[in-house]
Amino acid sequence: MAEKSKILFIGGTGYIGKYIVEASAKAGHPTFALVRESSLSDPAKAKIIDHFKSLGVNLVNGDLNNHESLVKAIKQVDVVISTVGHLQLADQGKIITAIKEAGNVKRFFPSEFGNDVDRVHAVEPAKTAFETKAKIRREIEAAGIPYSYVSSNFFAGYFLPSLNQPGLTAPPRDKVVILGDGNPKAVFNKEEDIGTFTIKAVDDPRTLNKILYIRPPSNTISFNELVSLWEKKIGKTLERVYVPEEQLLKNIQESAPPVNVILAIGHSVFVKGDHTNFEIEPSFGVEASALYPDVKYTTVDEYLNQFV
Amino acid sequence: MAEKSKILFIGGTGYIGKYIVEASAKAGHPTFALVRESSLSDPAKAKIIDHFKSLGVNLVNGDLNNHESLVKAIKQVDVVISTVGHLQLADQGKIITAIKEAGNVKRFFPSEFGNDVDRVHAVEPAKTAFETKAKIRREIEAAGIPYSYVSSNFFAGYFLPSLNQPGLTAPPRDKVVILGDGNPKAVFNKEEDIGTFTIKAVDDPRTLNKILYIRPPSNTISFNELVSLWEKKIGKTLERVYVPEEQLLKNIQESAPPVNVILAIGHSVFVKGDHTNFEIEPSFGVEASALYPDVKYTTVDEYLNQFV
Repeated sequence: MAEKSKILFIGGTGYIGKYIVEASAKAGHPTFALVRESSLSDPAKAKIIDHFKSLGVNLVNGDLNNHESLVKAIKQVDVVISTVGHLQLADQGKIITAIKEAGNVKRFFPSEFGNDVDRVHAVEPAKTAFETKAKIRREIEAAGIPYSYVSSNFFAGYFLPSLNQPGLTAPPRDKVVILGDGNPKAVFNKEEDIGTFTIKAVDDPRTLNKILYIRPPSNTISFNELVSLWEKKIGKTLERVYVPEEQLLKNIQESAPPVNVILAIGHSVFVKGDHTNFEIEPSFGVEASALYPDVKYTTVDEYLNQFV
Repeated sequence: MAEKSKILFIGGTGYIGKYIVEASAKAGHPTFALVRESSLSDPAKAKIIDHFKSLGVNLVNGDLNNHESLVKAIKQVDVVISTVGHLQLADQGKIITAIKEAGNVKRFFPSEFGNDVDRVHAVEPAKTAFETKAKIRREIEAAGIPYSYVSSNFFAGYFLPSLNQPGLTAPPRDKVVILGDGNPKAVFNKEEDIGTFTIKAVDDPRTLNKILYIRPPSNTISFNELVSLWEKKIGKTLERVYVPEEQLLKNIQESAPPVNVILAIGHSVFVKGDHTNFEIEPSFGVEASALYPDVKYTTVDEYLNQFV
């Protein structure tokens, strides 16, 4: 078996980054994380960085905005995974420039980890957010850089603990507000599983220049089904309040950021069904749980048990 | 009296943009709004654009990412006001380049309308958000472009209807969660007033190359005072639950976007007091309600009356 690729993370201490960094180190990839000087003095970041050290992750001093440091870091590895936050999505052009100059990168994973941004029906402000990621895809393709795009759909940890009810920290037991009619299917994946699947794809020729969809059948569920599943667990029926699309569009328009962004993403996924309203064709994509049937991922059903 | 400057808005259909565009048109400024082709087919945007038309706003077809269209639009006006959303903050370098090329702009207002980003004590992910705005300030200054930065602090419409309780649409009547000890003073301004003050500043030499702080005394209030004000209005005492800073930092670290961004901004303002923990010195700033005492802005006290 070939040696495992060396992986550099940019944005590795971010919300989803830290799960993928951990999966990388645990899978035996020589793992490098680009870390800014200033992160070391941020108490929360310092804790994650300490955890990285305990996993054997190599910390590389550098910054997305420092071209030289970026090229130098990239030259040490085979694969670059970006997990930068939404404010730095557009800045990934700098990573592309550095990868081109370094010339040694076998594969680049840009910061995605959500909807397939080429297959969305979103209104503003989600529209611009998706377009920003799509633009980076086009830049990667134009530069001829080998890539994988990970469409991991929703983070379970963001949506399931509250069943998408803003402000709740446990699923509701009386009333639940549902965007749209609750019938389109959405996909909820646990963050650790997103890490595992992403790292599986790194050295896999089947995911080269493809979109890796994390859409396991057990985690693909409509909002109505999700509520029914929860009702069954607690032995109680909830009042379901549906927000019609027209009302939702009005709410998006009237809400301040970031609530308007949250609602607009909810509109794309729960009303338009953008996680699942298309087939994954072999020409552009592969599905992770089919590709890696050995991965024991956490199902939505199992995930909800902790709140019963 | 001199003629009123012609103003071009970039991002004018966004959340705060639409209020400032309206203020501009109503104040008699020849008002131009850069609008993308795609916005015309977005039903929510189309409605705002119709409203702009009824106000006499001139729509200019163009796009931040189309340099030629941008230069052409800028050449028609005297002042450029950017109100682009957070995902396009970093892209404002393109506006700076276009303003330099056009050569005719008397003043540029970059997209700010929040904290004074040069005077914050924020943790990630708010830190990067603030730094993105600060970087644009430095680019403007390096290019020698005349500017005003509007630090309008919090949007009343975002914080006051729920008293910063996620998920609520009216202020709470039983229990209120307070970040920190509730003592630092924050500033809440109604969106229409932010529009009015910003437009007042456009042709005012006193705001040239300065930060315009919208910090009216009546809207500068600690969270504890805000709760007391609400309690007095409803004749009822609320249970106050305080979240210590250490707990809040842990919550920020464990939350997915965008909740982590919301909490980190809350940390900067409600715990660190970044709206008010510095004096406005004449060398860098002026205060709007002092500069324009004729503006009858809505106070926090008045704003809360609608929810009683």
